[in-house]
Amino acid sequence: MDKEIISELRSGKVILGQEAATELVNYGRKKEGFIELSLEEAAYLIERAKISVFFEKKELNFEFFVKKASQISHNFELKYVVYKDLRERGYFVQPGTTDFRVYPRGGSPGTTPAEYFVHVISEREPLGLGELIKQLKVVENVRKRMILAIVDEESDITFYEVRSTVFKEVKESKGLTPAGSEVATLLQDRVVVWDQKRSNDLFSIGFFGRLLDEKRLQLSLVESSYLLQNDNIKLVDLNDCAISFEDFFEYATKIEPDFAAKYKVYEDLRNNGMSVKTGFKFGTHFRVYDGMKDTHSRFLVHAISSEHVFSLQEMSRAIRLSHSVRKKMVFAYDTDHKIGYIDIGRVKL
Amino acid sequence: MDKEIISELRSGKVILGQEAATELVNYGRKKEGFIELSLEEAAYLIERAKISVFFEKKELNFEFFVKKASQISHNFELKYVVYKDLRERGYFVQPGTTDFRVYPRGGSPGTTPAEYFVHVISEREPLGLGELIKQLKVVENVRKRMILAIVDEESDITFYEVRSTVFKEVKESKGLTPAGSEVATLLQDRVVVWDQKRSNDLFSIGFFGRLLDEKRLQLSLVESSYLLQNDNIKLVDLNDCAISFEDFFEYATKIEPDFAAKYKVYEDLRNNGMSVKTGFKFGTHFRVYDGMKDTHSRFLVHAISSEHVFSLQEMSRAIRLSHSVRKKMVFAYDTDHKIGYIDIGRVKL
Repeated sequence: MDKEIISELRSGKVILGQEAATELVNYGRKKEGFIELSLEEAAYLIERAKISVFFEKKELNFEFFVKKASQISHNFELKYVVYKDLRERGYFVQPGTTDFRVYPRGGSPGTTPAEYFVHVISEREPLGLGELIKQLKVVENVRKRMILAIVDEESDITFYEVRSTVFKEVKESKGLTPAGSEVATLLQDRVVVWDQKRSNDLFSIGFFGRLLDEKRLQLSLVESSYLLQNDNIKLVDLNDCAISFEDFFEYATKIEPDFAAKYKVYEDLRNNGMSVKTGFKFGTHFRVYDGMKDTHSRFLVHAISSEHVFSLQEMSRAIRLSHSVRKKMVFAYDTDHKIGYIDIGRVKL
Repeated sequence: MDKEIISELRSGKVILGQEAATELVNYGRKKEGFIELSLEEAAYLIERAKISVFFEKKELNFEFFVKKASQISHNFELKYVVYKDLRERGYFVQPGTTDFRVYPRGGSPGTTPAEYFVHVISEREPLGLGELIKQLKVVENVRKRMILAIVDEESDITFYEVRSTVFKEVKESKGLTPAGSEVATLLQDRVVVWDQKRSNDLFSIGFFGRLLDEKRLQLSLVESSYLLQNDNIKLVDLNDCAISFEDFFEYATKIEPDFAAKYKVYEDLRNNGMSVKTGFKFGTHFRVYDGMKDTHSRFLVHAISSEHVFSLQEMSRAIRLSHSVRKKMVFAYDTDHKIGYIDIGRVKL
């Protein structure tokens, strides 16, 4: 290209003559009689001295264009950082319903469909689960992949892929027998089964609890609730008085304020044949095994409310940690009729 | 030992005759005319059939002793799990001002001083920073090591060592020159320096910001505040109006509610010659380098308020993550006159 193409900043877009189409392949969109560039495309082309942009008859250099664009478009600087990064690494990028539609490596507009819908967000912005799920549904309905591009305060970008997921295993038929005469005792925030045979059954058949020694099994609050609800244990307090499921549930909620949310997810996972243990060491509610035979838990699952608002710092920490132990990070939320799961993982774009 | 030693549960302790001293080495404390065992010691000895414990003339088997002890001592079950774990792995354990005093491997009461003060806590209990620091001071004053034994809902124990720490580097003499005529512009939540020479000075001499390209440097909010306060940049808004340190500070606090706490820690670390960058990718406020030459940041630092109450799940997650990237996790808090730092790390006892 010998001379720069002349363009004009008008109503938040950069407008070029139609004749530029042959020179600027894969930039802009053809309109009737002109070509329209997004602000990010224009900034990128100014920086590379491919176009000159005029505003009210004066040329804007890169610095002034960026300042102008920042006044027009919220978070322009962030979006530009992401646009530039993707372009420089060979991706074709078009504006989209999320911030950008991105074509697969080697693909381009007109020859291949877009693969990713990229949403640009600052590490400082809170991200509501409701909004995220709404966007995810739109993206998954057109069978694209949803990407969050999170820009930190050093303008470093981390890409996360968001996917809805399900947990479903063919349940092994061998079940637990109903509780017999043996009882389990509630000791403050945990439950102990004292009978050797029952302890071993719950542990080896049901994958519940942890053996404290040869005889005793310790159950967590969610495990105890689940077993109580299914009549697999009889629970008593320190004075040997029976405790009902309802009373126990209320008690557990006093100890753990988010017990109800946690329990619903536990129940759903268990009912779908998954084995579920505490994820405390990984800072999440659960680690989840595919059935009883799996020895490495492949998922960390954290129960959140459907009104949850993610801090991206907290989200980043959870995902980074889960990857460091080769697990997928899944967030579980309760919609009125069922539990939804979204898997958020770091991707290299 | 051929026959069990007879003892009695009385006022929350287990009492033995003095003659048991020769048989029960390293258990209990000698009092006038008798030996006193803690509840944990007694449970451990009952489980091993070394003693029989009577209460109101009736013998208590292990199950009943545990239930009784749970009524007497808050969190008995947790403390017993930790006591047993340590004993079984060859440590000598005595009651202490925290839950247990623990002797170094190979050491024992009477022959060596205790090395660790162990505080037992359930993963569910909130842990106030104030309380933690108070305990830490007591422990460090007698030159012991402070250990948190966190018991999760599966009765798994994780040991953390808590230490107070300082950041202090001999500051390299080469400083930044005061800002000249060149300005930096505030773009929403970040600041851009447009001048090539100044960008490079700030970046290479001061280790500030991130180069967006050959000319432009992007500074974070804390970096900009610090440089503004020290007259190392001149800051303007999109209309080229100058922004004062005070106005900028107020603006940054609107964007980041914990900006003030974060900035105080940043300032302290910088004034002590450390290089400080964002820790976003690791879910913390900062990663900290020893001076400018260090290429691997050895610390993650998170600013918390002096009234902070840790959720142990959150603490566990932060520490686990920092270890996975070979960094130490440090929490920084503001006391009225200076910034305090505590380093919390997982230890294998």
